[in-house]
Amino acid sequence: MELLRQLCQIHAPSGNEVLMKEFLLSYVQEHQDTWKTKPQIIHGEGFQDCLLLVFGKPRTVIFAHMDSIGFMVRYGRQLIRIGGPELMTGYELVGEDSQGKISCTLVVDEEERDLHYDFEREIDRGTELVFKPDFRETDETVQCCYLDNRLGVWNVLQVAETLEDGIIAFGCWEETGGGSVGYLAKYMHETYGVTQALISDITWVTEGVHAGQGVVISLRDSLIPRRSFVQKIIRLAQEAGIPHQVEVESAGGSDGKELHYGNIPWDWCFVGAPEDNVHSPEEIVHKSDIYAMVELYNLLMVEL
Amino acid sequence: MELLRQLCQIHAPSGNEVLMKEFLLSYVQEHQDTWKTKPQIIHGEGFQDCLLLVFGKPRTVIFAHMDSIGFMVRYGRQLIRIGGPELMTGYELVGEDSQGKISCTLVVDEEERDLHYDFEREIDRGTELVFKPDFRETDETVQCCYLDNRLGVWNVLQVAETLEDGIIAFGCWEETGGGSVGYLAKYMHETYGVTQALISDITWVTEGVHAGQGVVISLRDSLIPRRSFVQKIIRLAQEAGIPHQVEVESAGGSDGKELHYGNIPWDWCFVGAPEDNVHSPEEIVHKSDIYAMVELYNLLMVEL
Amino acid sequence: MELLRQLCQIHAPSGNEVLMKEFLLSYVQEHQDTWKTKPQIIHGEGFQDCLLLVFGKPRTVIFAHMDSIGFMVRYGRQLIRIGGPELMTGYELVGEDSQGKISCTLVVDEEERDLHYDFEREIDRGTELVFKPDFRETDETVQCCYLDNRLGVWNVLQVAETLEDGIIAFGCWEETGGGSVGYLAKYMHETYGVTQALISDITWVTEGVHAGQGVVISLRDSLIPRRSFVQKIIRLAQEAGIPHQVEVESAGGSDGKELHYGNIPWDWCFVGAPEDNVHSPEEIVHKSDIYAMVELYNLLMVEL
Repeated sequence: MELLRQLCQIHAPSGNEVLMKEFLLSYVQEHQDTWKTKPQIIHGEGFQDCLLLVFGKPRTVIFAHMDSIGFMVRYGRQLIRIGGPELMTGYELVGEDSQGKISCTLVVDEEERDLHYDFEREIDRGTELVFKPDFRETDETVQCCYLDNRLGVWNVLQVAETLEDGIIAFGCWEETGGGSVGYLAKYMHETYGVTQALISDITWVTEGVHAGQGVVISLRDSLIPRRSFVQKIIRLAQEAGIPHQVEVESAGGSDGKELHYGNIPWDWCFVGAPEDNVHSPEEIVHKSDIYAMVELYNLLMVEL
Repeated sequence: MELLRQLCQIHAPSGNEVLMKEFLLSYVQEHQDTWKTKPQIIHGEGFQDCLLLVFGKPRTVIFAHMDSIGFMVRYGRQLIRIGGPELMTGYELVGEDSQGKISCTLVVDEEERDLHYDFEREIDRGTELVFKPDFRETDETVQCCYLDNRLGVWNVLQVAETLEDGIIAFGCWEETGGGSVGYLAKYMHETYGVTQALISDITWVTEGVHAGQGVVISLRDSLIPRRSFVQKIIRLAQEAGIPHQVEVESAGGSDGKELHYGNIPWDWCFVGAPEDNVHSPEEIVHKSDIYAMVELYNLLMVEL
Repeated sequence: MELLRQLCQIHAPSGNEVLMKEFLLSYVQEHQDTWKTKPQIIHGEGFQDCLLLVFGKPRTVIFAHMDSIGFMVRYGRQLIRIGGPELMTGYELVGEDSQGKISCTLVVDEEERDLHYDFEREIDRGTELVFKPDFRETDETVQCCYLDNRLGVWNVLQVAETLEDGIIAFGCWEETGGGSVGYLAKYMHETYGVTQALISDITWVTEGVHAGQGVVISLRDSLIPRRSFVQKIIRLAQEAGIPHQVEVESAGGSDGKELHYGNIPWDWCFVGAPEDNVHSPEEIVHKSDIYAMVELYNLLMVEL
C-alpha cells in the first residue's frame, strides 16, 4: 500500500489538482511498460488538469476523481470549506503561502458556523489548507485522510495493469461539483462512442453497508441510475462470487451526477469500497473491501 | 378513458421505465395505421428506455414523461422515496421481488422522517414499490394515482391521431431529475433543428388555478421561460376560445428545467391540466380540462 | 455616466430582456464606427434575446448579463420574486399591463412570507414589476437599482471602444439561472475555439471586500474556478498596479456557474466592482472601483 500512502500525501484540493495529475502522469509513464496494454495518454490543452488513459477499444469508462476536500483562508483568520470536510477543533491542517510552509490547527466555534485557524502568523488570503496526512495500516485496514478518493485512484491504477479495453478518466472538482466530468464525457463519447461508466469512488458505512462485507454497488443515492444497468452489475458480481453489498440511499452523490444531468445517454453505476469516519483525517477502509473492489472492476471491464 | 386506465396500471418508477416504453411501442405499432400521419419510431441503442415519434417535418417537440414517483426498499423494513410521493400511513403499495408479488402498506412515523412497509415478510433490498392503482371515473372527473403523468402521455396519444408535423418524446426520470431530456433534446435539435418545446404534464390546483376552468399555461414555476414564447401561446389559446388558465408560481419544475439548463436555445412552455391531491393515490382531474388540453395541443402543433 | 443612467431605466427582468437587447443593438450600431475594431454582430434566430459582439480573433469571452431581478404578479394582489430582490415595504415598483402604466409600492408581511402590491386597481396576472429607478451620482459614487448588472454592461461597452480581439456576450436569465449561457458558450467555443471567460458583473461589499479599494477578482464563491487561471489574473493586476481586491467567499454565484457545470473546459473568473445595498433600489458603487474594473478588463483582453 506504499502507492496509496504516497497518493494520500499529495496536495490537490478541488480546483488545484495539478500536482496529482503530474504524479499520475509520471507514474503511468514509469509503469506502463509492465502493463498488459499500453494506454494512449491524453492531457494538456482542452483537458485543464485532467488525465485520460485509453486502453484498446473502450466500451466502458472508469471515473476516478483526483481532488480532495479541504479549507481555504477567507479574511483575517477565517476559514471556509472546500467541499464538505468534517469539522473538529484541533484537526491539523497543512499548506503553503507566500511566506512558506504552514502547519496549523482548525478551530470550530460551538455552532459550527465560524471556522478559524490557529497559527503563529496570518496566512495569505485564499491559501488552501488540507488535512495533514497520517497514513496507518494494519493487517485488516488502511486509515488516512483522503482515502476518498485516493483509494479510487489507487484502484484504477491496479486495474490498469491488466486492462485491455477501457478508459480511465482522472477528473477534477468532484467534491465541489461540475467542472470536468462534462467535457471529459463529451470527448470520450464523441471519440470512442462509449456510454457505459463506472464511478471508482469511496462510499459510506451505514446501517445497511458494513466494513469488511465487500465492495459496494450502489442502486441509488440522491439520483437513480438506469435500473437494468445496475442489476446487470449486481448479477455479474453474484455469478463471480465477489463479495459485494447493495447500497440504497436517498442522499449523497458522485461524478455519476454530472453524467446523469448531461446530454449523453450514460448507463452509470457507483462501485466502491465503504469507509467510516467520512471526510475526516480518520477515514478508514477494510482491505478486504479494497481487494473486492479491484476484483470487481477487473471483471466488469471485461464483461460489460 | 380505458387507455388511461391501462396506462395507470403500468409499473414504471423513475429509472425503470422499460414496461411503459414497451406498452407505448406496442400501442403505436397497433394504432399508427389509423393516424393521419405515420410517425418514424426511434428507440433502442443510444436512447435507453426512451421513445420518440417523429411526424412529418417537425417544428415543435412535445415532452411527456413516462416515469412515476414511488418508494424503494432500503435496509430491513425501511423505505425511501422515489421522487416526492405524498405520505400517509395505510397507503397500499405494490411491487415484486425475488420471492414474488407484493401488496403491502405504507407506515409513516409522526415526523415523516422514517418510512416503513407493513408486510408479512421482509422484501428484497432495492425493491421498488408503487401506489396500488384504483381507477375511478365519473361524468366529470377521472381519479387514480399517477395521472401525473399518465394523463400527459394519454394527451399526446390523442394528439398523435391527427398530428402532421412534430415530435412526441417519451422521456424518463422526470420525477427525480435529469437522465434523458438532455440527450433527447440534443438528438432532436441536431437532427431536426427544432427549438420549440411543450411540456405535456400535470400541474397543481392552487388558489389561482381551479379544477374545471381550463388547461393551464404556465408563465413560470421555479424557472421563467422566455416570456415572448409563452405570451404567444396564451394569445393563440385566447383567439381560439379554448378554456385556459395562466399559472404564475415561484416553485415547482418539469422537464422544462432540463431544457432551460441545457445548451440549446429552447423556447419551452408547460401546458397541462391541473390536478388535486397531487402525488397521492387520489390524484383527480376534471375531464373538461383534459379535453381543453388535447384541443390546445392540437392547435399549438399547427400554429407554432 | 449618462449611458449608465439610461441602462438603469430599461425594463428587462429575467426572461424578458428584449428591450435591453434592442437598446444595445442600437447603441452598437451607432457607436461602432468610432471603435478601434468594428465587431461582427450576432443575434436573432438561435440566439433568443441575446447579443454577441465578436472582435478580431477572439481568445477570451466577456459575459455581461442583461437581466434584472424584480417581481411578478401572482394571483389577486400577491407578488412573487424574480430572482432575489431585497424586500422592504414601501419600495416603489413600476411596470405595465393591459390597462396601462403602473407605479405601485411593495408590501412585505412581517415574516417576509407574503408579498403584495399596493395599487389603486388589480394588476393583470403575470405582470412584471421592477424597482423604480432613481439614479444618483456624486464625485465618488453612483447609486441606483440595477447597477447589478447595468454596470457590468456599461463596463463592456467601454472595453469595446479599444478591444481588438475578443467576444462580448450579452446574456439573459442570470438572476434566475440557466437559459442562455449554455448555448452561447457552445456556439462561441465551436465557432472560435475560445475557452477563457471573464464574468463582468457586480459583487458584494463584505468584511474583506471594501468600497473604493479596487476591482474584485474572485478566487471563489459557491464554486471554485481553476486556481491557476485566477492566479494568473491576480498576477497581471499586480504587475500592472491596478487597484484590486481578492474575494474568497463560500456562497454566491454568477454566469460562471453555468460555464462550470457545462461540457466545455472553460477557465473562468469573476472580475467586477463591489457594491453595497445589494439587490435593492439603493445599490451603490465607488467610481474608482468602476474605473479599475474597466482598466483591468482592457489589460486582460490583451494579456490573456
